[in-house]
Amino acid sequence: MAAGETWSPLAPKVFPKLPAVGGVRFASSAAGVKYQGRDDVMLAELAAGTAVAGVFTQSNTRAAPVLDCQRKIGNTSCDSGAAIIVNSGNANAFTGKSGDEAVEAIICAVAAELSVPEDRVFSSSTGVIGEPLPHGRITAQLPALVAGLHAEKIANAAQAIMTTDTFPKGAHCNVQTSEGTVNITGIAKGSGMIAPDMATMLVYLFTDAKITQPDLQALVSELNETTFNAITVDSDTSTSDTLLIAATGASGVEITASHGGFREGLHKLMLDLAHQVVRDGEGASKFVEVRVTGALSDQDAKTHAMAIANSPLVKTAIAGADPNWGRIVMAIGKSGAAAERDLLTIKFGDITVAENGWVSPDYSEEQGAGYMLNQEVVISVDLALGSGQATVWTCDLTHGYITINADYRS
Amino acid sequence: MAAGETWSPLAPKVFPKLPAVGGVRFASSAAGVKYQGRDDVMLAELAAGTAVAGVFTQSNTRAAPVLDCQRKIGNTSCDSGAAIIVNSGNANAFTGKSGDEAVEAIICAVAAELSVPEDRVFSSSTGVIGEPLPHGRITAQLPALVAGLHAEKIANAAQAIMTTDTFPKGAHCNVQTSEGTVNITGIAKGSGMIAPDMATMLVYLFTDAKITQPDLQALVSELNETTFNAITVDSDTSTSDTLLIAATGASGVEITASHGGFREGLHKLMLDLAHQVVRDGEGASKFVEVRVTGALSDQDAKTHAMAIANSPLVKTAIAGADPNWGRIVMAIGKSGAAAERDLLTIKFGDITVAENGWVSPDYSEEQGAGYMLNQEVVISVDLALGSGQATVWTCDLTHGYITINADYRS
Repeated sequence: MAAGETWSPLAPKVFPKLPAVGGVRFASSAAGVKYQGRDDVMLAELAAGTAVAGVFTQSNTRAAPVLDCQRKIGNTSCDSGAAIIVNSGNANAFTGKSGDEAVEAIICAVAAELSVPEDRVFSSSTGVIGEPLPHGRITAQLPALVAGLHAEKIANAAQAIMTTDTFPKGAHCNVQTSEGTVNITGIAKGSGMIAPDMATMLVYLFTDAKITQPDLQALVSELNETTFNAITVDSDTSTSDTLLIAATGASGVEITASHGGFREGLHKLMLDLAHQVVRDGEGASKFVEVRVTGALSDQDAKTHAMAIANSPLVKTAIAGADPNWGRIVMAIGKSGAAAERDLLTIKFGDITVAENGWVSPDYSEEQGAGYMLNQEVVISVDLALGSGQATVWTCDLTHGYITINADYRS
Repeated sequence: MAAGETWSPLAPKVFPKLPAVGGVRFASSAAGVKYQGRDDVMLAELAAGTAVAGVFTQSNTRAAPVLDCQRKIGNTSCDSGAAIIVNSGNANAFTGKSGDEAVEAIICAVAAELSVPEDRVFSSSTGVIGEPLPHGRITAQLPALVAGLHAEKIANAAQAIMTTDTFPKGAHCNVQTSEGTVNITGIAKGSGMIAPDMATMLVYLFTDAKITQPDLQALVSELNETTFNAITVDSDTSTSDTLLIAATGASGVEITASHGGFREGLHKLMLDLAHQVVRDGEGASKFVEVRVTGALSDQDAKTHAMAIANSPLVKTAIAGADPNWGRIVMAIGKSGAAAERDLLTIKFGDITVAENGWVSPDYSEEQGAGYMLNQEVVISVDLALGSGQATVWTCDLTHGYITINADYRS
């Protein structure tokens, strides 16, 4: 869906004003990879000294550009300049040898055009799979892209990477430190399916903090667990999911992985973008937070929370504003993680629904049904077994999801 | 849905004629547990000497009658008579202490009425959860049930245990042995959700074979893996799933767990009933077989097959008759089991769709789209890594599923 068509009912009202990040310039262009009449390539140029870290899909059928990024991300040297190039319309996934050749061609061309080493150029592709990527259309745009690089063009970049997204996704925060202010800014795409194939989430974060590559990697790997790895739309995993973070050091403010304010700011920003992805979930009409406490471990809590968030029966009940707590009990039971039926407490918002192995004596179906009419719903489960906890976010499962995904190519 | 309303489009044309099994008598009755104007309780009386074995849901939030059955099923002594009693309309799940008391009351009443030991009476309940089971309505029917016991009443029993099923499920086979013929007959219920809560599959098998309880248990546990544990409608797991098998020995034909003909007959019968459950999947319009070969192990093959069969993106594509092989690649990638992208071969029926990490050169989208119009679809994946294999069965994910489950209580 192109920008300008109907936004998700759960979308933020406006795209935020994103300030420039020192050491980063953006450009976007219409290469005609698949879409016509819109930008479909974005280029980010990163100043010498920029540390780049990232996390990637765990899929065993990863796309060619993901494999290329993963090979390069361990490179901790960041003396030279760097670049990120992303196209929409074609995912370059399941494209055999030609897929690797396309990545190689794009990487070489960007490296030559910006005079940066090839192992400092990172690429992503999102869109149809199984079709060769017409990489010549992308490289043909490079002179124009480089000529158009500008510190203020990040909003255009956010538009260029969209596929089935109904709105562009961006977020920003400033972190105050004793040495000065650090800027963190990010864009993302992802909503569910991409014509004709799979959900892909792409996230690009930029900061002017001065931080080593290993520290940046440690931080983003850890924070990813409670943000992008804590959301689900339909339980399916893309072959192309990519998150890259670039720290230019332009602010001169030195940050380590343990810096409280920076951690907090980066976490907030990542969570904001992750929530925007859920809010653009295909067919989504409700935004759902699932909180699990009292588990034997945090991992157990997340297993339960994801079992609830991924259950088609739970998600359809929410779509129908049905306070169907029995389906929550079912999802906990099937998750495989430890649970004692008679110790469970289940709440919808502040309403205690079930406790001591049975429906709460004070609960009424009308109360639950009234709560379920909200556009944002919080489901809490306490297991009373230990101190493990986790929170995940999802959306409901509606006729809209079926329509988008069953009828896409027909 | 009561019998007589519209059957699933994938249902068998008729309920099969099920012959009597020596040593078993059935009765059913309208106890008014929840449904009105239909039978909702079935009783099976088993002759002295009957071995009873079973398999149960792995849920951590199992219902009271399941926990009771599990406690009793290890009892290998089978000198006395036995009984199975099942009600529909109320699952007696998540009902706290009162749930255990209801089971106890029913078990005691059946044991007294049939003069069998309490630990030889097995019960199941299916229907709403979280509501106390009005067990008095069931026990009040016992004199009439016992008076009505008859070897030919199994079809009525199959009707009495239905909840949201659109058709009753039964199957039968004869096994020829050198000592004579053995009869195996079974009934099942299950389709997806049960008002207002969860999918429950109940299966009761009866045979006149003479087989020890440990042999019967070993056989049914093993065969369950490739039959009822190889089907999925929506990836959700009931708190009440129960399979019981009773071997009366009335044929006088001695069978061991390794008897080829009996294994084969029982496997065929269990698979038939398992397929009938999938064919009654909520909203199902297509019956789907997923075959995985060439995995590192059978377990890996099943992990891949279930990832494909449970993927909402795969299931919606099938609903839309979309030959979307990219979603198969995605599901394999996310399953967590070993796979090499460039070694995969994917087929729709006999049509090779993808091989060597790319779409097959001979494949055309028209060919795939034509195949996908079939009501029965076979998806085959070869991983070319080893000799592990598995086959699972599922149905598509349609607007019907959303309508049934999102709008159930509204």
